[in-house]
Amino acid sequence: MLFAGCLLLLASCQGPAPAPATATTTADTAVAATTDPLASWNEGPAKQAILDFVKRTATEGSADFVPMPERIAVFDNDGTLWSEAPMPPQMAFVFSEIKRRAPIEPELAKEPMVKAALAGDMATLSTGEHHDGLMKLLALTHAGMSVPDYQTTVRNWMNSFQQPKGGVGLGGATYQPMLELLTYLRANGFKTFIVSGGGIDFMRVFAEELYGIPPEQVVGSSAAANFELVNGVPTLTKTVEDIFLDDKAGKPAGIHRHIGRRPIFCGGNSDGDQAMLEYTTIGNPHPSFGLIVHHTDSVRETAYDAKPPVSGTLITALQAAPERGWLVVDMAKDWKVVHSR
Amino acid sequence: MLFAGCLLLLASCQGPAPAPATATTTADTAVAATTDPLASWNEGPAKQAILDFVKRTATEGSADFVPMPERIAVFDNDGTLWSEAPMPPQMAFVFSEIKRRAPIEPELAKEPMVKAALAGDMATLSTGEHHDGLMKLLALTHAGMSVPDYQTTVRNWMNSFQQPKGGVGLGGATYQPMLELLTYLRANGFKTFIVSGGGIDFMRVFAEELYGIPPEQVVGSSAAANFELVNGVPTLTKTVEDIFLDDKAGKPAGIHRHIGRRPIFCGGNSDGDQAMLEYTTIGNPHPSFGLIVHHTDSVRETAYDAKPPVSGTLITALQAAPERGWLVVDMAKDWKVVHSR
Repeated sequence: MLFAGCLLLLASCQGPAPAPATATTTADTAVAATTDPLASWNEGPAKQAILDFVKRTATEGSADFVPMPERIAVFDNDGTLWSEAPMPPQMAFVFSEIKRRAPIEPELAKEPMVKAALAGDMATLSTGEHHDGLMKLLALTHAGMSVPDYQTTVRNWMNSFQQPKGGVGLGGATYQPMLELLTYLRANGFKTFIVSGGGIDFMRVFAEELYGIPPEQVVGSSAAANFELVNGVPTLTKTVEDIFLDDKAGKPAGIHRHIGRRPIFCGGNSDGDQAMLEYTTIGNPHPSFGLIVHHTDSVRETAYDAKPPVSGTLITALQAAPERGWLVVDMAKDWKVVHSR
Repeated sequence: MLFAGCLLLLASCQGPAPAPATATTTADTAVAATTDPLASWNEGPAKQAILDFVKRTATEGSADFVPMPERIAVFDNDGTLWSEAPMPPQMAFVFSEIKRRAPIEPELAKEPMVKAALAGDMATLSTGEHHDGLMKLLALTHAGMSVPDYQTTVRNWMNSFQQPKGGVGLGGATYQPMLELLTYLRANGFKTFIVSGGGIDFMRVFAEELYGIPPEQVVGSSAAANFELVNGVPTLTKTVEDIFLDDKAGKPAGIHRHIGRRPIFCGGNSDGDQAMLEYTTIGNPHPSFGLIVHHTDSVRETAYDAKPPVSGTLITALQAAPERGWLVVDMAKDWKVVHSR
């Protein structure tokens, strides 16, 4: 549901000013210098709850000990591991690609939805029940090319991204406290996965570098890639067939499809994550932990829940949190810093 | 393509004599006592080629060194890691389930294809282009129940399986030399995956115990599992929707879907594995290794290639092997022992 509601944002989508690429950092090295594994979390109940859970599940002999292979942790990406405001980076990529390619691809430029995008014509892009125009743009930028070509395009673009209140490049959109949480979980034998409505091939380009999460531990929305030998060369071509939407009830389904066992730790930030929070925490034979990142910080980030800037309302999951025992992280109060750079 | 050609076998499918469950063994402990990592392989070019490849890709400073995250190894299951003759174990499970359930489920027993199966009526089961009867049996035994219920059923059944020339239980069908190869690769920083035409949920029940491969590293044929809260309980229900066939060109597609990068080691035994052998070895920027298990041993196992007992011809992949540089393992000559017990 990456594009639901994105129409409001299209007008402001003029693309960031290109910025020079800087040295990359990884989740694991970013916190190597500190002895507090969650140094960017303020002292308080939220931080303590995480520390307590990890200690009791990862300490052999503890009544709540969970064997290492069962220590599966899953995290939504947009709004949970990095900023999705003012728009999810993948959406910025789509518009950036349309702008980059239209001048050099006459056939593409003739496409009505491309014209509409370039003209900022929201009415045309919003036609149809499923925002057909935006889905068309997604298809144009995410299908019809080989997997390596697509990955190269994302890689060439990613350092030009600018999160308005964060740092340069895609890494500048990531949340430092969440990077520390990922690293801390891994240091305690957890296997960390992304489970996001975003495109699986998109995220796999940078997940290892930004989050320390290898491609095989990225679960996302996807479509089939077709394999054939083209002039003797093995070629995987991205298509729009067999679309899998890794959102809402699709998230537990995606977890089952890719991981095959129940997580014991789940982090999300919207109602789209509620099903995987439920799957993780209700009736789990192991101790489990649900975490919701609540966007309460209008100064360092963007404050929203019921009315998000693009997609991903947080209403029902927030209501359910007390009963379910999910930790609601108050970004403004619980995080010492927000972005990793 | 698990069931292609299985009609020939149906007549002999009277099910194994139930045998008592014995202590289980894992791939990693099975060879712990030896210093030769491939102790069940006879000395010779096949064994040496494997040792050489692993040494040059896993030794830092070697010209062919491959960084650890890129050391992805994929293996077919039926006929590669365990015996598929006289029939793949999953097929034995299907008929065993039909026999077990028909007497206690009147509605199931009325199903024409169930009657046909119980009567050994091959003509009825073979109707339709895609062996509709057999597909129906597969659906009846693999969909319509929750994931945990299905897994429990497989677990309850697996120790009664008897590979005719192997040991008791599903573990008795596994190949000792391949278990050693998996362990040896992992000891050298390879991440091992199953990439099989068999059912992903079926294999995940035992892959960790038999092969040391966790559920999240099992790629197989699959259908959607639907998530919902049933009376407040998170429930994943197996369906026959969105079927993914992890065979032939579906294998590289499955590798991309689940792993997201190219393997550098691939083992198979049939033409259904040819596409993933090609994907692994043709034009790979890293050094790569393709391996074909050739079923040449009519004494300790079953000898076949062009005419397999059930499915999985080995014709074109065998022809391509010399040109592609794939190692063809001669089971009769290269393996000191075949089954692990």
